[in-house]
Amino acid sequence: MYKLVLIRHGESTWNLENRFTGWTDVELTPTGVAQARQAGQTLKAAGYEFDVAYTSVLKRAVHTLNHCLDAMDRDWLPVVKDWRLNERHYGGLQGLNKADMAKQYGDEQVLIWRRSYDTPPPALEATDPRGQRQDPRYAKLPADAVPLTECLKDTVARVLPCWNEVLAPAIKSGQRIVLAAHGNSIRALVKYLDNIGDADIVGVNIPNGVPLVYELDADLKPIKSYYLGDADAIAKAAAAVANQGKA
Amino acid sequence: MYKLVLIRHGESTWNLENRFTGWTDVELTPTGVAQARQAGQTLKAAGYEFDVAYTSVLKRAVHTLNHCLDAMDRDWLPVVKDWRLNERHYGGLQGLNKADMAKQYGDEQVLIWRRSYDTPPPALEATDPRGQRQDPRYAKLPADAVPLTECLKDTVARVLPCWNEVLAPAIKSGQRIVLAAHGNSIRALVKYLDNIGDADIVGVNIPNGVPLVYELDADLKPIKSYYLGDADAIAKAAAAVANQGKA
Repeated sequence: MYKLVLIRHGESTWNLENRFTGWTDVELTPTGVAQARQAGQTLKAAGYEFDVAYTSVLKRAVHTLNHCLDAMDRDWLPVVKDWRLNERHYGGLQGLNKADMAKQYGDEQVLIWRRSYDTPPPALEATDPRGQRQDPRYAKLPADAVPLTECLKDTVARVLPCWNEVLAPAIKSGQRIVLAAHGNSIRALVKYLDNIGDADIVGVNIPNGVPLVYELDADLKPIKSYYLGDADAIAKAAAAVANQGKA
Repeated sequence: MYKLVLIRHGESTWNLENRFTGWTDVELTPTGVAQARQAGQTLKAAGYEFDVAYTSVLKRAVHTLNHCLDAMDRDWLPVVKDWRLNERHYGGLQGLNKADMAKQYGDEQVLIWRRSYDTPPPALEATDPRGQRQDPRYAKLPADAVPLTECLKDTVARVLPCWNEVLAPAIKSGQRIVLAAHGNSIRALVKYLDNIGDADIVGVNIPNGVPLVYELDADLKPIKSYYLGDADAIAKAAAAVANQGKA
């Protein structure tokens, strides 16, 4: 049996401001730092050990991982940063306030933008300064690999190659993995692992900064999955994510 | 022409307490964090860009690199942690106060322990809790690769394979490297690069948290090297390191 631990980054400045973030590279808040350290303390108290850690190329996930590893006294673990674990790209919504958008377009439209499986938000222009096509961290990618918007289906399409090429082989080789990423890149993994339908994934919300453990069989099929930590706090955190897009 | 940037970690708690640290995994002080961030700001202001970063498996170097990259807004750069970049192992002196030792054994004996090229301090017992043979980060190494004490010659003997196998090939392939490490692992590199004799390396002191730039020719021979930042502050920092072992 294998174990995989997924952690959504701690609260970011734009979580706090209730803005669509996507690939915008915003910082953790002090609360987000505390959540990341708490995640590490929880893992340490439960006796978890890891061989390698993965994260995205966005600092809210990188810092979450760094703080988590530091709280575990495991700063020395190898860390791999993979752009395919980035948050869903939010296109033309990046930077805009979720509640403002709900007032302007209605709760239903915002829910579609946030949670529809295959309807992306309006795309950014390739030259929009809110976009990432001039960002040096993606300079080695083909230009069209840097999205201008994404629906969750698009995110799944880039997260799964990372799973198939990197994460799954590492797990099968016996590496114990912790992965710090984002609401939607983790939802993409959860959808795949738990074989959740396109319509049902809309109801899945990942709380910030809480370790999500998957126990996997020899074929990497889930035996069970659960959050580590205080159950009430976790339920509240997931509900808070679900309510962000309401006017 | 290639450039290589070396940074000794910022001030650690045991630098502040004037204790022999070696492979003991101590934290940065708030001053050390500020030095690391200043190093990043200096590099950013001077227009430095990197493709990959290297550090040791000791948190004072890992954190120095993390803070430096964050100050450069380059949290996304790949980071490789290599135990061969660790500080010199200080054997039976690890944890002891440098000035106390100077009072007890004399300035000269402490200078020999600190700076003799080929006389190591007294070795730790393999089971000494101040040693690292039970530390999980070294579990995959052959037991006798984890030192019980080292003189600088021993440190050179493990740093050079890292240079030859990892760093030099990366530089020659065009990768721009920043490396955050330790007083003696950096002295080992400086001794090799500048071809400094065994007797002369005793006078070389590396200040904490100041970027040291090497410009290298096609054969990786130094064209010139210099510290980045305020010259007076750098000279004071190096003098402070030189004076640590005096009663």
